[in-house]
Amino acid sequence: MATSRWAPGAQAPPVPLRRRGLVLERAILEAALEQLSTVGWGGLTMEGVAAGAQTGKAAVYRRWPSKEDLVADALEAGLPTLDEAADHGGIREDLYQLCRRVRDAMFSRSGIALRSVLHECDSASAERFHGVIVNRVVEPSNRLFREVVRRGVARGDVRADATCDLVFDVIPGLLMYRSKVCGSEWPDEDIAQMIDQVMVPLLRPATR
Amino acid sequence: MATSRWAPGAQAPPVPLRRRGLVLERAILEAALEQLSTVGWGGLTMEGVAAGAQTGKAAVYRRWPSKEDLVADALEAGLPTLDEAADHGGIREDLYQLCRRVRDAMFSRSGIALRSVLHECDSASAERFHGVIVNRVVEPSNRLFREVVRRGVARGDVRADATCDLVFDVIPGLLMYRSKVCGSEWPDEDIAQMIDQVMVPLLRPATR
Repeated sequence: MATSRWAPGAQAPPVPLRRRGLVLERAILEAALEQLSTVGWGGLTMEGVAAGAQTGKAAVYRRWPSKEDLVADALEAGLPTLDEAADHGGIREDLYQLCRRVRDAMFSRSGIALRSVLHECDSASAERFHGVIVNRVVEPSNRLFREVVRRGVARGDVRADATCDLVFDVIPGLLMYRSKVCGSEWPDEDIAQMIDQVMVPLLRPATR
Repeated sequence: MATSRWAPGAQAPPVPLRRRGLVLERAILEAALEQLSTVGWGGLTMEGVAAGAQTGKAAVYRRWPSKEDLVADALEAGLPTLDEAADHGGIREDLYQLCRRVRDAMFSRSGIALRSVLHECDSASAERFHGVIVNRVVEPSNRLFREVVRRGVARGDVRADATCDLVFDVIPGLLMYRSKVCGSEWPDEDIAQMIDQVMVPLLRPATR
């Protein structure tokens, strides 16, 4: 009969956190995002992330050869997905709901960390992190804005010639500009105002 | 009869550049902008600026007690003035000409230096330089956009309710967004497209 290696009454050693694969990976990415939010890009170390995830440095290096690789994955993993735009029956509501999701991505913990990392890191890393913004926020949201506008043209509440690139950049442009210049965090009522005072007049059929 | 202090044939010493007041000030500001464009905020020193302006360090410190003061003034002095928007007889041309001037300010030597200084300096100085952008570009151009739109309402080629803050932020938002995200330098034809495809439809009277 097998017996315990520990004599009854002796204190058991701390149980190591034995996680593998995706579970451990998620814990490491989460710890990296936590480090970014507290000590920033400059303060983040592979050791600190390993400690935060209660694992060893080797487990981190095995998956991510450099701090830049780790941070890029952590930022990506923390961004909400922009993969579809539900049909709410009208251009106003479709745009309003989509804008709220883009705003949520901008102000997610990853979104905020991304902007501060971009300010701190050198230009080679900046290019990579800029790529995360483009691939995970700029392009998916642009694709969804196009989808929503095309749907509006088919529905009849958007003019047929409102499909040029510049029109699709109006919302991201306003979101970025007001956040940078006025420090706006884009509460829902400001998003509603942007839709009603800019996008609806810009998109509506000219003759009615 | 007065005689020269230098015997005929003796080599004269280098003539010191004796400038005063505004002339010397302009030379120092120009040298500071030159240093910013070549060695950046991190590399700029009061000594380097004095050398560039062919004057002494004391002449620089007498006017600007710190590097931050000097750089703020140099950046301001180098920005083109946005003080009036001529009436070209229609909203399209008024906006087109005004946008070109705002673009010229963004891509002036000062405008480019301002963006790179903001990226390099600490957050206390950043606040000050951000103030230069607001006071010298953001606010004056916003005031001119309002003037041009009000003129359009009076003329009849702009709808009367197109005067909310968000409408005035569309152009600066697009200028900033495309410059940051796509690296656009806004050639004239892109400005024309922005006016024709975004601003004219956004501003035109709804019933015609």
